[in-house]
Amino acid sequence: MLKVALLGAGRIAQVHARHIHDHPDTTLYSVSDIYAEAASTLAEKYAARVLSADEAIADPQVDVVLVATSTDTHAGFSLQAARAGKAIFCEKPIDLNIERVKSCVAEIKALGVPFMIGFNRRFDPNHAHLNRALRGGEIGELEHLQICSRDPSPLPDDYLLVSGGMFRDMTIHDFDMARFQLGEEPVSVSAIASALVSPTVKAAGDVDTAVITLQTASGKIAVINNSRRSGYGYDQRIEAHGQKGCLYVHNVPTTTLVKVTEEFGAQAQKPLHFFLERYQEAFSEQWKAFVAALKDNRPVPTNADDGLRALLLAEAAIESFKTQKVVSVNLEE
Amino acid sequence: MLKVALLGAGRIAQVHARHIHDHPDTTLYSVSDIYAEAASTLAEKYAARVLSADEAIADPQVDVVLVATSTDTHAGFSLQAARAGKAIFCEKPIDLNIERVKSCVAEIKALGVPFMIGFNRRFDPNHAHLNRALRGGEIGELEHLQICSRDPSPLPDDYLLVSGGMFRDMTIHDFDMARFQLGEEPVSVSAIASALVSPTVKAAGDVDTAVITLQTASGKIAVINNSRRSGYGYDQRIEAHGQKGCLYVHNVPTTTLVKVTEEFGAQAQKPLHFFLERYQEAFSEQWKAFVAALKDNRPVPTNADDGLRALLLAEAAIESFKTQKVVSVNLEE
Amino acid sequence: MLKVALLGAGRIAQVHARHIHDHPDTTLYSVSDIYAEAASTLAEKYAARVLSADEAIADPQVDVVLVATSTDTHAGFSLQAARAGKAIFCEKPIDLNIERVKSCVAEIKALGVPFMIGFNRRFDPNHAHLNRALRGGEIGELEHLQICSRDPSPLPDDYLLVSGGMFRDMTIHDFDMARFQLGEEPVSVSAIASALVSPTVKAAGDVDTAVITLQTASGKIAVINNSRRSGYGYDQRIEAHGQKGCLYVHNVPTTTLVKVTEEFGAQAQKPLHFFLERYQEAFSEQWKAFVAALKDNRPVPTNADDGLRALLLAEAAIESFKTQKVVSVNLEE
Amino acid sequence: MLKVALLGAGRIAQVHARHIHDHPDTTLYSVSDIYAEAASTLAEKYAARVLSADEAIADPQVDVVLVATSTDTHAGFSLQAARAGKAIFCEKPIDLNIERVKSCVAEIKALGVPFMIGFNRRFDPNHAHLNRALRGGEIGELEHLQICSRDPSPLPDDYLLVSGGMFRDMTIHDFDMARFQLGEEPVSVSAIASALVSPTVKAAGDVDTAVITLQTASGKIAVINNSRRSGYGYDQRIEAHGQKGCLYVHNVPTTTLVKVTEEFGAQAQKPLHFFLERYQEAFSEQWKAFVAALKDNRPVPTNADDGLRALLLAEAAIESFKTQKVVSVNLEE
Repeated sequence: MLKVALLGAGRIAQVHARHIHDHPDTTLYSVSDIYAEAASTLAEKYAARVLSADEAIADPQVDVVLVATSTDTHAGFSLQAARAGKAIFCEKPIDLNIERVKSCVAEIKALGVPFMIGFNRRFDPNHAHLNRALRGGEIGELEHLQICSRDPSPLPDDYLLVSGGMFRDMTIHDFDMARFQLGEEPVSVSAIASALVSPTVKAAGDVDTAVITLQTASGKIAVINNSRRSGYGYDQRIEAHGQKGCLYVHNVPTTTLVKVTEEFGAQAQKPLHFFLERYQEAFSEQWKAFVAALKDNRPVPTNADDGLRALLLAEAAIESFKTQKVVSVNLEE
Repeated sequence: MLKVALLGAGRIAQVHARHIHDHPDTTLYSVSDIYAEAASTLAEKYAARVLSADEAIADPQVDVVLVATSTDTHAGFSLQAARAGKAIFCEKPIDLNIERVKSCVAEIKALGVPFMIGFNRRFDPNHAHLNRALRGGEIGELEHLQICSRDPSPLPDDYLLVSGGMFRDMTIHDFDMARFQLGEEPVSVSAIASALVSPTVKAAGDVDTAVITLQTASGKIAVINNSRRSGYGYDQRIEAHGQKGCLYVHNVPTTTLVKVTEEFGAQAQKPLHFFLERYQEAFSEQWKAFVAALKDNRPVPTNADDGLRALLLAEAAIESFKTQKVVSVNLEE
Repeated sequence: MLKVALLGAGRIAQVHARHIHDHPDTTLYSVSDIYAEAASTLAEKYAARVLSADEAIADPQVDVVLVATSTDTHAGFSLQAARAGKAIFCEKPIDLNIERVKSCVAEIKALGVPFMIGFNRRFDPNHAHLNRALRGGEIGELEHLQICSRDPSPLPDDYLLVSGGMFRDMTIHDFDMARFQLGEEPVSVSAIASALVSPTVKAAGDVDTAVITLQTASGKIAVINNSRRSGYGYDQRIEAHGQKGCLYVHNVPTTTLVKVTEEFGAQAQKPLHFFLERYQEAFSEQWKAFVAALKDNRPVPTNADDGLRALLLAEAAIESFKTQKVVSVNLEE
Repeated sequence: MLKVALLGAGRIAQVHARHIHDHPDTTLYSVSDIYAEAASTLAEKYAARVLSADEAIADPQVDVVLVATSTDTHAGFSLQAARAGKAIFCEKPIDLNIERVKSCVAEIKALGVPFMIGFNRRFDPNHAHLNRALRGGEIGELEHLQICSRDPSPLPDDYLLVSGGMFRDMTIHDFDMARFQLGEEPVSVSAIASALVSPTVKAAGDVDTAVITLQTASGKIAVINNSRRSGYGYDQRIEAHGQKGCLYVHNVPTTTLVKVTEEFGAQAQKPLHFFLERYQEAFSEQWKAFVAALKDNRPVPTNADDGLRALLLAEAAIESFKTQKVVSVNLEE
């Protein structure tokens, strides 16, 4: 039974706590949070103890440190846990500063501890099914990939302003998804974007509506479309076109009820509201995959390099947007 | 070029006129109608002449008589045309009186002229595709057939009162469809019905909502559900369940536009409004099939017996509804 | 925290054990099974004790007895638990013998203990959504209800032979669903059926393919279609037609992946395989609803009368099938 | 009755001939083609005469000249007809050389004759429905438009080599569609492309797989994805995202038949095969719209400027692809 120290007691940490508890091979050992009450409420629910982050990381009983705190502390806690020899699961991103990410990734790799970054969407049963179909050659060689990723509505202004901007905060999931599904690294990035949704975003010089195009060395093209507000829930779809056909991942409706009336036509349900609903199973599957890798001494499915490379693509997108040019990237150097 | 005398100038006759004109091997020779103006308007549109029905049937130039007049004249005009040696296309039903239908069918068969009854739905590309798939064994042996047939709204009261009742007027299309898709004659009929939609229908002792179940000698079951009012357009769907799977014919939406909004979910378009829209192509294909049979001296696809047998099923349904029992039928005697 | 004694350790019992464990207000106190090893394996997983059924029912610590044993023991254990003053959750059916069910229901009602029968499908989010929409008047007065309920493949022969026959074993769920969605008791039952799927079933004089039609006093019609083998997974759909439109509950696909190819068209995924997959969430919601009713001292959502009435409809269907007549029922006497 | 001189007797000309014949207000007066036999076959079918193009354009009986010859003759015949004072319907493109198009458009506009360019897709009932919904404000202000336009398989090599390249030949339809749906002119163009499908295309330095991104002055973004080969038929879909929701135009399946089996899941039909099938109704509606404009003395719906502007966008896409930069355009100068 692996003992897990959970750093953070917020929304995502609560999701992780539940999956740690439900998993037959892991137990929630401790919860740490700068808000003592949040930590104790969560700890109590699963009969865990409350520790400071330092205590938890130092505790010899702890096998795994799960970093689900605020973004600016991810790199620090990860390094501290790595130096203490713990296995680490870290929510994305490692950091918003690319140089800090590079040095952090280098040190973690040198220390040789298992480190998994939380790109949960890869573990969504629908996206994972697409990946198996692509790798299984069901449509031959992939040629064109299209990722639609649109939030139901803009997150709060104070979050948006410290988020690192749309490309680093939101598109980063889609950069990882593109790499996952392409099966080949992008070599160029091109970004067209506007601020159409949020006056706050616009005033801050950021964007909230974007189309980002990636191209690989063999000529495969991936295009991501993002918006901070869909106007109809969480839009998370993928299309993959290949030599022998096409694969779609559709949204998941809240229920399968359809109403047909004279006035409104055939009304199906909207997609599941947001990531906690749509990716509920993905979070659970992600934890299982991490635990299975630890138990079998296999590489974790999404490692430190995956965290770094998604951020490198975000940096390139920002440069492309600013210079109005296609920007070359080399993710493998 | 086959010369066609069209009896009738109403809504259905106008549809036929267009398909006669469009077909490269047929020409509209004459139009007859008890309303002189209706006849002349339609005749003028396609450069045809106006004749009385008697003149048209007697005219040696005429190859084909198309009977699209009111129901009570179908049998009379058909017999008159058969005696004149013409090929006949007659709109359903031959008559509402089963004895009259039997004697009419017997005489027409004895005269040996080509006679096709207008069960247009068989020629709908969707229903026809289902039929090819069933006959091709795509789901193995058929076991359960389900026909949904619901009108957008009740026809006018004066029509409903002379229609012969729901089973003879509306279900008759579905009885023919059941026979077409089953590929085996029903041996029993059971009908459960209510008058829920139209006070006129209820006052007249008729029904407007029904479930009719047919069973064949080998045990195949077909169930038809009917309503005089769907509340959302014309509902014309079929399900066929067999040993190896299931086949559906879905409705055809007016366009493929789908709107997704926070308030109303994912709204697709309603089905095509009524039979003129949904079965537009069926009427055209039906005419082509009739002409092809005439040209090749092959049997017509829907003959006088098909007209009789559908009506025999309607009579059995009426008896079942009245006696609350399953009623046996022998369509092949 | 309610302490639950689980009688049975088979497939369904294991599902209940998990939901008892996951629910914040219930704990798995004991497991009982005639196979000692099954009981101990399940008990160990959730740190519960192994007791005999008699011990468990007699144990003063136990608040709730959950009966998930073989059908022939349901009535006996339920009565024993009722006499011991426990709240009871009993898997359907109470018994296959209608007289035994009547006397059992009478005694349980007289004892006044909470008794819930496991008609889990009512708690499926899709079917429950339909029910809210119907009760909320979204399509006006309901007129026609259609339940499609088809198993992926016949259960093992030895199960089929002791199941009490298709109407009592399989259709019983659909009878309950019909009552739930109609919101009005059926007054007549008509059944047409065949043995097309299983030679064992046929040899035993039972059926495996059926259409059952119910009618209420106000004329609403419900039609159920059943098969012991769909050929494509678990088919669990409902259509409800009313004055102002139509509501469908569609199947739930395994994932939302769709593949489009030249050879095979647009392939979507099959429905979820069988009841453990499709009704996974329904079992969890059912348990929550039971616990909520106990906590709030409210009536349970599916009570002993629901168990009895579904079986009365099954008996009427059997009689209708044998006599080839519509059979009247009075569920409220 | 407008008399139409049809220049050309090939595939598209035959489609036009049929719609000219079917329209109550137009008649096919003459057919001209460099292949005498093609001209006479088509003329005979509709009882028209065969004339040389010069004779037809000079004939005082002719009201309308329909140019459906090879691309290199479009501009010449259009100018000749304009100078003869005829109304003109010209298949796209006016020419592949942008300077020639500019001078041709200028002269035609100066002559003041009605000139319609054949951007048939605007008249597809599905795309037209989208346009009405957008202009009607059904999703508020449009923000992101996505056009999927993929051919079933590459056209013959000899066609591809003289087509002017993918952007001028294929994307030109999508540039027009983008302008139509955006309701605002693009001000910049960005193109990423590869040659993945056709060795001939690759050897010729052309591309067959592309993503083109347009942006308007107000920040709206349109993205077009093209391929010369979809692998599953003709993929013609549009998505429009706005402030209050999203609108999709889906493909049109060949029939509504769906097959569900254990082995292959739920198979729906492929999209209609290619433009003659998918845009059959669009060609008919296009002709009706042209005739209606002529009769009512209203501007034609797609004029010479529309032809020019789509080509200007193609030129910009080519430049962007070559320079790897975003290219500014000013379509209104």
